[in-house]
Amino acid sequence: MAPRLKKAKTEPQAEAKLESYVHSRDSFKAVYDRLKEELLADEIMGSPPDFAKEWFSNVLDYNVPGGKLNRGMAVYDTLEALSKKTPGSDQIFKANTLGWCIEWLQAFFLVADDIMDGSITRRGQPCWYKKPEVGLIACNDYILLECCIYRIIKKHFAGHAAYMDIMDLFHEVTYQTSIGQLLDLTTAPIGSVDLSKYTLDNYMGIVTYKTAYYSFYMPVACGMILAGIKNKEAFKVAEKILLDMGQYFQIQDDYLDCYGDPEVIGKIGTDIEDNKCSWLICTALKHADKEQTKVIEANYGKKDKDCVAAIKKLFVELKMEERFKEYEEESYKRLTAAIEEQKLVPQAVFTIFLSKIYQRQK
Amino acid sequence: MAPRLKKAKTEPQAEAKLESYVHSRDSFKAVYDRLKEELLADEIMGSPPDFAKEWFSNVLDYNVPGGKLNRGMAVYDTLEALSKKTPGSDQIFKANTLGWCIEWLQAFFLVADDIMDGSITRRGQPCWYKKPEVGLIACNDYILLECCIYRIIKKHFAGHAAYMDIMDLFHEVTYQTSIGQLLDLTTAPIGSVDLSKYTLDNYMGIVTYKTAYYSFYMPVACGMILAGIKNKEAFKVAEKILLDMGQYFQIQDDYLDCYGDPEVIGKIGTDIEDNKCSWLICTALKHADKEQTKVIEANYGKKDKDCVAAIKKLFVELKMEERFKEYEEESYKRLTAAIEEQKLVPQAVFTIFLSKIYQRQK
Repeated sequence: MAPRLKKAKTEPQAEAKLESYVHSRDSFKAVYDRLKEELLADEIMGSPPDFAKEWFSNVLDYNVPGGKLNRGMAVYDTLEALSKKTPGSDQIFKANTLGWCIEWLQAFFLVADDIMDGSITRRGQPCWYKKPEVGLIACNDYILLECCIYRIIKKHFAGHAAYMDIMDLFHEVTYQTSIGQLLDLTTAPIGSVDLSKYTLDNYMGIVTYKTAYYSFYMPVACGMILAGIKNKEAFKVAEKILLDMGQYFQIQDDYLDCYGDPEVIGKIGTDIEDNKCSWLICTALKHADKEQTKVIEANYGKKDKDCVAAIKKLFVELKMEERFKEYEEESYKRLTAAIEEQKLVPQAVFTIFLSKIYQRQK
Repeated sequence: MAPRLKKAKTEPQAEAKLESYVHSRDSFKAVYDRLKEELLADEIMGSPPDFAKEWFSNVLDYNVPGGKLNRGMAVYDTLEALSKKTPGSDQIFKANTLGWCIEWLQAFFLVADDIMDGSITRRGQPCWYKKPEVGLIACNDYILLECCIYRIIKKHFAGHAAYMDIMDLFHEVTYQTSIGQLLDLTTAPIGSVDLSKYTLDNYMGIVTYKTAYYSFYMPVACGMILAGIKNKEAFKVAEKILLDMGQYFQIQDDYLDCYGDPEVIGKIGTDIEDNKCSWLICTALKHADKEQTKVIEANYGKKDKDCVAAIKKLFVELKMEERFKEYEEESYKRLTAAIEEQKLVPQAVFTIFLSKIYQRQK
């Protein structure tokens, strides 16, 4: 998950005309309505019969706009941080269009993810594939969701100087995310436990590819492209910093699953019983002696409260809370230094993110 | 399915060096080996651990190269038909690279298709998702298969004058094919029968989007792009003719499922019991009176040999064989006229295909 964003500068304008964009959550949502309308009316989707169009429309409304929209809205924030004057209506629209493409990309991966994980709910409602009339038709629906991205990019960026760079970025991040998924699925296959694969190296690979690229690097890269940045080194610098931040964010997520206040984070963590390849277990395995490793082997990934308690007791022995705090502090120092050391990307691009996520409680 | 292609002009050269390409089935396969090797060694796929690379390699070998390769090899045939002199090694390699991208696209759709249809075998072996160690991980594997297409195109065409056109074509045809899939899934959902949707209009929509674009139009469009054709009208003309041909090919497939010699076509047709939205049933419903419609409603889509016999009897009453022959003759005349009337695309591009598929017995 990406950090929550700063408050929009402009108040929501419920009646904002589509032709004139300001940046607010409401006007961001208005861009979704326009993009959806265009997709339904375009030369390819225009011809199918009504029942197919209705299905397509439902696929979009059910899966695309219901998230926190943090990733999508971060494109504009990046563009603004990089711009000398406030971006105009056309630039706001373009940034939010790419923002929605990221939300579309996420929807595509989440629909697929839920099928593979056998999940039941998502964003407080049944997973799309769990709806009785959908089932495995969802396998085609997420292909359609992905196709929309390139329809939208073509419609709004064909002829734009950055058309190719934008397409390349979406292709590359899609590939990285699906490789992250592959790493996750082959490191911890459902129903089988092979703790020898639970190494910090493998963990970092999963987190980086599966989440950090699309959640942290991508929104910023989109904003940088729109701001006209061409220097490849600047993208490399941003990638390095944002992936590091994305890793921290996920490690923190794993920490909160075990040590966060359920009242505050809004759920009771189940990573231990779910056999999740988390930072805590990978780090614990790294430091465990033979006896402690046996305890992990005997108790991790079992839906039994005594087993969970045994793992939590071991985490205390291995000082996992302290290890996390140590990692957090080091990570913060390393990131702050990396942000200050480089001169290619204005620091505000990163500090907006950083201030939101460090030492969060939820 | 695309037509079989003419015999390669050059004999297979088992030891053909990768740097020097001739056009033959063997050298076409050598291009696959090179593309796969490049994918496994590139900067994104290079870093994951060996078990993930091995999985990826298996996904490719199991799903990409095992088909008839007709679509893939047709790119070169088109390029050759459009070229004044025999294409050189680099052009052959480029044509076959795009040919493999079409095979990759097909692999991606077939893996997804088999999951949705609950199919058991494909190309004489278990469907990928049916392998015990795979299961629904296949949902991510077909995303990976699709990603490969753009990795390959980027590697071999970035900087090429046609880079953008090639990407646009693959995006567009992917979208069209998934809309075809959507039409198919919503017209004839598994386990429910709604014959009011079995109209010739819906049938033509399914066939055109789901099969004709990627099997007939795409290989030729790739060859035309490589030959440097820029005139959009030429692509429109080719599209019209090739979609018509693709429709004929599928209608013929439906006809052979019921009337072909099982010894010759190599399988016993089951479209009637499978409730398939075929040309025969759509045409029969169009001409059936009230009583005949009742017979169809009572017997179509039932795994019972008396029901199948009742439908076949009705097909005799409704002169379905004669209707097919009539359609075939009209279609041939219409296509020949369309090919001769236009001056934008050399006729050989189309007649190569046409001569292979008309009045085929299998």
